[in-house]
Amino acid sequence: MNIITIERKVMEKNDEIARQNRALFSQHGIFVFNLVSSPGSGKTSILERTLEYLKGKVQIAVIEGDVQTDIDAKRIALYNIPVVQIVTRGGCHLDAQLVHDALNNLPLPNIKILIIENVGNLVCPANYDLGESMKVVVASTTEGDDKPLKYPAMFRIASALIVNKIDLVPYVNCDLKRLERNALQINPQLKIFETSCTTNQGISDWAEWLASRVHQHS
Amino acid sequence: MNIITIERKVMEKNDEIARQNRALFSQHGIFVFNLVSSPGSGKTSILERTLEYLKGKVQIAVIEGDVQTDIDAKRIALYNIPVVQIVTRGGCHLDAQLVHDALNNLPLPNIKILIIENVGNLVCPANYDLGESMKVVVASTTEGDDKPLKYPAMFRIASALIVNKIDLVPYVNCDLKRLERNALQINPQLKIFETSCTTNQGISDWAEWLASRVHQHS
Repeated sequence: MNIITIERKVMEKNDEIARQNRALFSQHGIFVFNLVSSPGSGKTSILERTLEYLKGKVQIAVIEGDVQTDIDAKRIALYNIPVVQIVTRGGCHLDAQLVHDALNNLPLPNIKILIIENVGNLVCPANYDLGESMKVVVASTTEGDDKPLKYPAMFRIASALIVNKIDLVPYVNCDLKRLERNALQINPQLKIFETSCTTNQGISDWAEWLASRVHQHS
Repeated sequence: MNIITIERKVMEKNDEIARQNRALFSQHGIFVFNLVSSPGSGKTSILERTLEYLKGKVQIAVIEGDVQTDIDAKRIALYNIPVVQIVTRGGCHLDAQLVHDALNNLPLPNIKILIIENVGNLVCPANYDLGESMKVVVASTTEGDDKPLKYPAMFRIASALIVNKIDLVPYVNCDLKRLERNALQINPQLKIFETSCTTNQGISDWAEWLASRVHQHS
């Protein structure tokens, strides 16, 4: 019983800081994506392909969230854009305060799109508002087609779903139609993209849509 | 500050119940595996192949942990062994109390091996002792070769690593040698198996080893 009360206080505090982040993003006209998925679904690879596609077209910055290591930040830094690494040291999700601290290290007036790559975890990050404009969930075909049913909170709260690694469909036990039907059953509003970071299939559709959020926003 | 204190109490309570579970397992001579991984790494498929291989050779029971749905328990029940589904309704890990409650529904005197399939999550389950004899972490080749470095706690606390989906190595960006080197860098004691649930490669090695734990134990 005590635990429930304490957790609610934690969430209230998080939500308050998330509101401050959201106000700051709004003030600077920044559209913010919170990218969530299981470990190894390809969030960083999608980011890399997206940055290649949008290079010079729109000002993007990235916050990398990881339990350990700055491997991902180093990959993203190669694209010569502002990037901050958050290492949670065991923490299973980013929270609004961590993102707030990271913002001090970003040139906010020069950013139109901020992409926050969350810790790889299909469960906990669903409960933590970071002040983002929307959550985007990545599910790879190699994880099977039942993940939306088994981790519904994340698919319910997301605005878009990227089905990644579609080049592997011939080799894995995943029915793409069933995966997408399962996702839409949980959240009929989901905008769905199919991508492969190996063949680049679908990356332009996703990246164009992402960039178009800026114009809707400003 | 409050939060840290409360979390410690939660862990103390969990550890106390885990000790009770462990005593119960010891009393009945049951060897208990806590199977952990990212969502979609193939825990349930490995279980299916293992049960096929060991059918009639050793008495196995399964506890299935999922955030939502009894899809996995239904798959396992086809093998006609005792199985209990725990649905955490949003919870990101199993805890000792949930397992304790599940044990009331299992015929303990008739079980030699209990396999607990944890919620798909490479972070939180590392912190919760369930009273198991050992943790086994599954990492699939499709997740890339850097996961041990990025989620070190789970690889550090596990006794064995199953590298699954090795049939997909030709199609994905994963250096098997580097994956295993990264895992051993985190935990030099890790016993490593390579498996494919599509071709059955490596399943016999893993299943024989699993069954041999019983004899070591009794």
